Amino acid sequence: MTDQSKIIERLKEEKTFYLISHMLPDGDSIGSLLAMGEGLLKIGKNISLFTPGHIPRKYNFLTGTETVSHEVLIVDPDITTIVLDSSDLDRLGIFKEAVLNSKQIINIDHHVTNQRFGTLNLVDSSAAATGELVYSLLNELPVIITESIAESLYVAISTDTGSFKYTNTTPNTHRVVANLLEFGLNPGTLSQKMFDEKPLSFYILLKEALSSLEMYERRRVAVMTLSKDIRERSGATTDDLEGIVNYARNIEGVEMGILFYVEGNREVKVGFRSKRLDVSVLAGNLNGGGHTRAAGCRLDGDLETIKEKVIGESLKLLKELPA
Amino acid sequence: MTDQSKIIERLKEEKTFYLISHMLPDGDSIGSLLAMGEGLLKIGKNISLFTPGHIPRKYNFLTGTETVSHEVLIVDPDITTIVLDSSDLDRLGIFKEAVLNSKQIINIDHHVTNQRFGTLNLVDSSAAATGELVYSLLNELPVIITESIAESLYVAISTDTGSFKYTNTTPNTHRVVANLLEFGLNPGTLSQKMFDEKPLSFYILLKEALSSLEMYERRRVAVMTLSKDIRERSGATTDDLEGIVNYARNIEGVEMGILFYVEGNREVKVGFRSKRLDVSVLAGNLNGGGHTRAAGCRLDGDLETIKEKVIGESLKLLKELPA
Repeated sequence: MTDQSKIIERLKEEKTFYLISHMLPDGDSIGSLLAMGEGLLKIGKNISLFTPGHIPRKYNFLTGTETVSHEVLIVDPDITTIVLDSSDLDRLGIFKEAVLNSKQIINIDHHVTNQRFGTLNLVDSSAAATGELVYSLLNELPVIITESIAESLYVAISTDTGSFKYTNTTPNTHRVVANLLEFGLNPGTLSQKMFDEKPLSFYILLKEALSSLEMYERRRVAVMTLSKDIRERSGATTDDLEGIVNYARNIEGVEMGILFYVEGNREVKVGFRSKRLDVSVLAGNLNGGGHTRAAGCRLDGDLETIKEKVIGESLKLLKELPA
Repeated sequence: MTDQSKIIERLKEEKTFYLISHMLPDGDSIGSLLAMGEGLLKIGKNISLFTPGHIPRKYNFLTGTETVSHEVLIVDPDITTIVLDSSDLDRLGIFKEAVLNSKQIINIDHHVTNQRFGTLNLVDSSAAATGELVYSLLNELPVIITESIAESLYVAISTDTGSFKYTNTTPNTHRVVANLLEFGLNPGTLSQKMFDEKPLSFYILLKEALSSLEMYERRRVAVMTLSKDIRERSGATTDDLEGIVNYARNIEGVEMGILFYVEGNREVKVGFRSKRLDVSVLAGNLNGGGHTRAAGCRLDGDLETIKEKVIGESLKLLKELPA
């Protein structure tokens, strides 16, 4: 019997569930949590939903967000806890201890690094989003999918694939989404909310970042720099910073984009984005880390000295590509 | 017998075809042209491919672009001409007369405004892209789809739906794309080419546009202004201008984005983008036109006078929305 079948059995047998997804909630963690929660409600279960940390405002329109608690009310170890989209229990933040005490943990995730910490584990790294796995479970239970469940799952899958642009997008991703759209969703309205709308502070920060643009090595490396002062004047949050460095990488002909961001007194954060180069190695050599095409590090010292060193290392890495 | 069946018969019967798509080629017109051409080649037909106007550089990687001619070599009126993604024959530019002389025209299109100018017409405005209709024809012929045909169709469909973000995206769109991805396409690499990469001149223009940002009516109208001088210094083309005004519209809380762009001596172009308002009416009142959410006009006079007038009209339109 597969873990998926055992999970289906457990979901049918038990009456009450805690559901939780990871800290710094994103579209997949929230969408999967809400869809799984509403699905179980529909078949008569009692559920309590949790996230460590608040849900970004742009997801507030999803049905059920107002029922998600951020307080550690996971108190009964006999109640099965369903953990969604979390590669390990550390990602549950202040909820970690309470979840560890649960006698039964159902772990549903698509991260390749998942630690299989569950009593039962549905871990499939070929899924583009945890939302795909939730869709499969709800169909197998079976739960009759509603428009609001479909909307939560659409948000889960579209955000984790960058609206189907990332390499993780598979034929199955599109087949699931085809079925979800049948429930009358408007992909135009949903995508505007998910992808296009950004606060004014983001655009102010973008203007400053573009104004600071420097190009190196025949325009193959694009460098942006943001001072602490500029960030404070723009009213930008850390959320706003996300995505700024992509603009450097996305310039035609550029192989690597770098963002220097002065965090505090002599503390500089560096973000790397690349088209073909492995920047995780570069970041690793500078005591940072990350993914092949998106990595970062944090360095102490004077901005100009740090820039010189980091750009020097980047140009060395660039030599790996044909000129 | 439906026109689709008659088209299938004609494609089987005839040996030689001219294929043409519209001027100012885009992803759907090019992708549909190349896929249809390669499909017919695969079943032993002779084909000649045409577009009025050159193909944007970013599509050059598609198989067959080098075989597309921009000269009017449509000379034999007995050869069936297949017109793709063109709502009317005016959109064929310098090719219009030659195509009009064709005794048989197969018209394949998804524009709701299509003039049904063909001898046979496959016009379906529920299709998100002409590429969806080409996929259906190739399957019915049948043609064995290759990776390069799949790639051309993916580009056709993904560009016309803004990577599946626009309201025109349907369950069928996703089902077709699921099947296309089975041919081993990499959506990450393709999407980077289609959507993310922009020339440096675009970013220089964006910086200037963001620097000029003015907000009106409690930040519900965002206005950008670009002088002729700035455009010339940036090295930007008209292509680069496309999309700049979207940035104004995409600011959180903004209902309408407006871009003023000084074209020449006392000539000002105005672009309107909205989330909910009908800006085609606004543009129409100013002797322009366009779509509900994206419209524009061209006015003569002094920039400041024009701005005052246009912003005034926009604030009147804004009153239609609840405050």
